[in-house]
Amino acid sequence: MNLTILGCYAATPRTFTNPTSQVLEIKNRLFLIDCGEGTQVQLRKNKVKFSKINHIFISHLHGDHFFGLVGLVSTFTLLNRTADLHIYGPKGIKEIITLQLKLSNSWTGYNLYFHELTSTESEIIFEDEKVIVKTIPLKHRVYTNGFLFQEKTGDRKLDMNAVLNYNIETCYYQKIKNGNDIEMQDGSIIPNEKLTLDPLPPKSYAFCSDTIYDESILPIIENADILYHESTFLETEAHLSEKTMHTTAKQAATIALKANVKQLIMGHYSTRYASIELFKQEAETIFPNVLLSDDGKTFEF
Amino acid sequence: MNLTILGCYAATPRTFTNPTSQVLEIKNRLFLIDCGEGTQVQLRKNKVKFSKINHIFISHLHGDHFFGLVGLVSTFTLLNRTADLHIYGPKGIKEIITLQLKLSNSWTGYNLYFHELTSTESEIIFEDEKVIVKTIPLKHRVYTNGFLFQEKTGDRKLDMNAVLNYNIETCYYQKIKNGNDIEMQDGSIIPNEKLTLDPLPPKSYAFCSDTIYDESILPIIENADILYHESTFLETEAHLSEKTMHTTAKQAATIALKANVKQLIMGHYSTRYASIELFKQEAETIFPNVLLSDDGKTFEF
Repeated sequence: MNLTILGCYAATPRTFTNPTSQVLEIKNRLFLIDCGEGTQVQLRKNKVKFSKINHIFISHLHGDHFFGLVGLVSTFTLLNRTADLHIYGPKGIKEIITLQLKLSNSWTGYNLYFHELTSTESEIIFEDEKVIVKTIPLKHRVYTNGFLFQEKTGDRKLDMNAVLNYNIETCYYQKIKNGNDIEMQDGSIIPNEKLTLDPLPPKSYAFCSDTIYDESILPIIENADILYHESTFLETEAHLSEKTMHTTAKQAATIALKANVKQLIMGHYSTRYASIELFKQEAETIFPNVLLSDDGKTFEF
Repeated sequence: MNLTILGCYAATPRTFTNPTSQVLEIKNRLFLIDCGEGTQVQLRKNKVKFSKINHIFISHLHGDHFFGLVGLVSTFTLLNRTADLHIYGPKGIKEIITLQLKLSNSWTGYNLYFHELTSTESEIIFEDEKVIVKTIPLKHRVYTNGFLFQEKTGDRKLDMNAVLNYNIETCYYQKIKNGNDIEMQDGSIIPNEKLTLDPLPPKSYAFCSDTIYDESILPIIENADILYHESTFLETEAHLSEKTMHTTAKQAATIALKANVKQLIMGHYSTRYASIELFKQEAETIFPNVLLSDDGKTFEF
């Protein structure tokens, strides 16, 4: 699993900072999360393979989280994309994109599916054999969801020492990996757990931006391996944070602590501060494992 | 009069090239022409004073000419703009922008006026005491206009040698500048043309992108000082140019020649070519005064 930050600054694109967008690679799937203006250029700069993105998740309809979407959708057509593209986001996103495609007389050359979200309860919005994605209802000035990406538990792994010890033929290996016990020629049964090892523990990534400090998300993100949580402000601007329905670094760290996540990544920084290190310093007074996102940074987990 | 090219490449924003947008400063007015994705960042990089832009002209509703508009409109609000903003563009542009502002619950903090264009005849769309702007109906895959920006003829200039020769008192100077003759104490009349010099000839700038080769625009742009004309392709790709309703470098130069403009600026280049110098070389076989636009370049006239 790895995460590439295309943009992690609040409000507007600037000369050296980009609005929210990130690419999560999980079990060989490439998910785009939010798509602020300039995202397609950031994808190019970070050498992300455009064509592998089949699912785009939009947290909410503030411009710094979706103004780059229509451009990306259009560029996919110019690049002769044929694969289906799925967009998950708040109700209204379909109208925004299709109106612009209609007026520019530029329908996509591929199938475009919109999955509009309206629920205020957590729900599963994507699932295949290896990954599941759930919404994390957030509280912000407009309808907003975070997203929880979870690997599913993989197959048990063959314990090569054990199968060789028992002289089991290779034609049974897949059966064992599928979880079955094995009956030997003498009629004895060797239980599956003697022939296999536990699979790697499944990983999970929770994306939470934008939101007020809200403990009601704790049961959803509990024990996540990585939590990206917005921290637009420092505590010195707590009054602005409350007014604009954002979070301070200290509050983000408190969520990380109470949710018992392994790692906190901070982002959605206001550009008013001299250094983003200040966010880390404030958060570390509450929670030890803090990483700072920055445009162009990649995290491997 | 000066022109800053924010972007002049066709189709999509790329790592090092930007879609169409330019700023024309004429008689101290700042006009933004087209607004591809990333325009607000280009405005910052080129240190253009955002707040001085009160009029935005959008040629047509292909993404590379307007996808940056909603972001700029939103950023003006974040920058606490109060001045009115006027947007001129094809019918539909109002719905595109207002739908997104509505769904993001982010109405502008300033008055936003849309002037939607539908005419296929040239019309005056802006006029004040010093500048006039007319549409140049173009032929492209969707409804498209170029724009002709013309300075108005200024006041005549006082000929200081003459007024001192005639011993005319300073209280009459404004009257003379306004074009009046002067009656002397002996009853004789000194005609205005003996006391004044011709004003500087008014300049004009014609912006034509995107369009096929179309001689019907010649009467509108005739004798313009500067013509920006798209040249998406070279003659070697004339078949693509025709198919996509664009122009080759040679065709753009032919329009410049036939319209008797003083200077041609080329742009809207396809990125398939190794060097934009090729456009200049091809155009100069037809018309001598060719300049190449490029992102970040400023022309003074």
